[in-house]
Amino acid sequence: MPLDYPPPFTQLTRELRRLPGLGPRSAERCALWLLGHKDARPAQLAEAISRAASEIQPCQKCGFFATGPLCEICSHTDRQGRELCIVEQPTDILPLERSGAFGGLYHSLGGRLAPLDHIGPSQLRIASLIERIREEHPTELILALSADVEGEATTNYLVEILHPLGIPLTRIAHGLPAGGGLEHADQLTLQRALTGRRPAGS
Amino acid sequence: MPLDYPPPFTQLTRELRRLPGLGPRSAERCALWLLGHKDARPAQLAEAISRAASEIQPCQKCGFFATGPLCEICSHTDRQGRELCIVEQPTDILPLERSGAFGGLYHSLGGRLAPLDHIGPSQLRIASLIERIREEHPTELILALSADVEGEATTNYLVEILHPLGIPLTRIAHGLPAGGGLEHADQLTLQRALTGRRPAGS
Repeated sequence: MPLDYPPPFTQLTRELRRLPGLGPRSAERCALWLLGHKDARPAQLAEAISRAASEIQPCQKCGFFATGPLCEICSHTDRQGRELCIVEQPTDILPLERSGAFGGLYHSLGGRLAPLDHIGPSQLRIASLIERIREEHPTELILALSADVEGEATTNYLVEILHPLGIPLTRIAHGLPAGGGLEHADQLTLQRALTGRRPAGS
Repeated sequence: MPLDYPPPFTQLTRELRRLPGLGPRSAERCALWLLGHKDARPAQLAEAISRAASEIQPCQKCGFFATGPLCEICSHTDRQGRELCIVEQPTDILPLERSGAFGGLYHSLGGRLAPLDHIGPSQLRIASLIERIREEHPTELILALSADVEGEATTNYLVEILHPLGIPLTRIAHGLPAGGGLEHADQLTLQRALTGRRPAGS
């Protein structure tokens, strides 16, 4: 009867394998590294996981990661009463922040409309969005959802809902990505880049 | 000033990034998954890491992973007084076990000779190997080290040391790997496959 690793080892491999992108091989490699490598810090990793899982919660306003009731962005006084940028996921907020092109507040919907997966408007944070808009009076609502079918459908739905509120409503531009050559762009991207063309030389 | 994730999150990403094969992107993806996905079990993962790190130790005899002083292989009474297979790393033991072609005991050296990295005989578990051989009287010593330059050098060194003990001393065969076509085999593999040829049809 061939032997196996001791149970705590296989248990560790099993848990590591649940992480996205880790197959059985790489999970075993990580476990071996954690238990045997001189640079491994298993105690610190375990502690970091427990701490993050217990301390991080969604911001009650925008849905971003927070350690208190409000995230750092929503607690910022400079950002109040400015533009409100609506995104699908809390993870969409940081790329926008890192772009340095926006200094207002965010609102994560927690997903997008997907009737096949039974995700309708009431599964998304839309009621709280409207409540926020009524309370905070943002100067502009910016829709920054994905440029795919479900993202478009959700954007269209939000336009219908938000337009009556009488606040300037925009959506981020779709077109050729930075560094992207025309020869690599797909048909839809080029269509949108053409439709969204703007006066040059101004 | 663009914001970042809260400190417990960045701390978690930093620790995950230390794992082999995880770059900054995949570490962030794992952290987001751990904190946000409905299937994530951060508490279980943290517990599995802590438990494995505290409970698993090298077997005092062979160096394989154990939860007590001796590993499961060395505690097996059927395996005593048989062949002793010498490998570089404790992780080399399980592949040999899984091959089902061996039912004796193992001894992991904990590495191989590498003068450039200041790893000489005294950095390896060679003294304890000789002690074991004198105590346990194995029927055969099988050298199963890597088929590369350092593995060969270590094998040659061990042959010199172990030959005087008067116990049958063998080394595993080198040649064409299973499923490997001749057209994909490198020159050295083919040289070894030819040198190690055996009578056919017996």
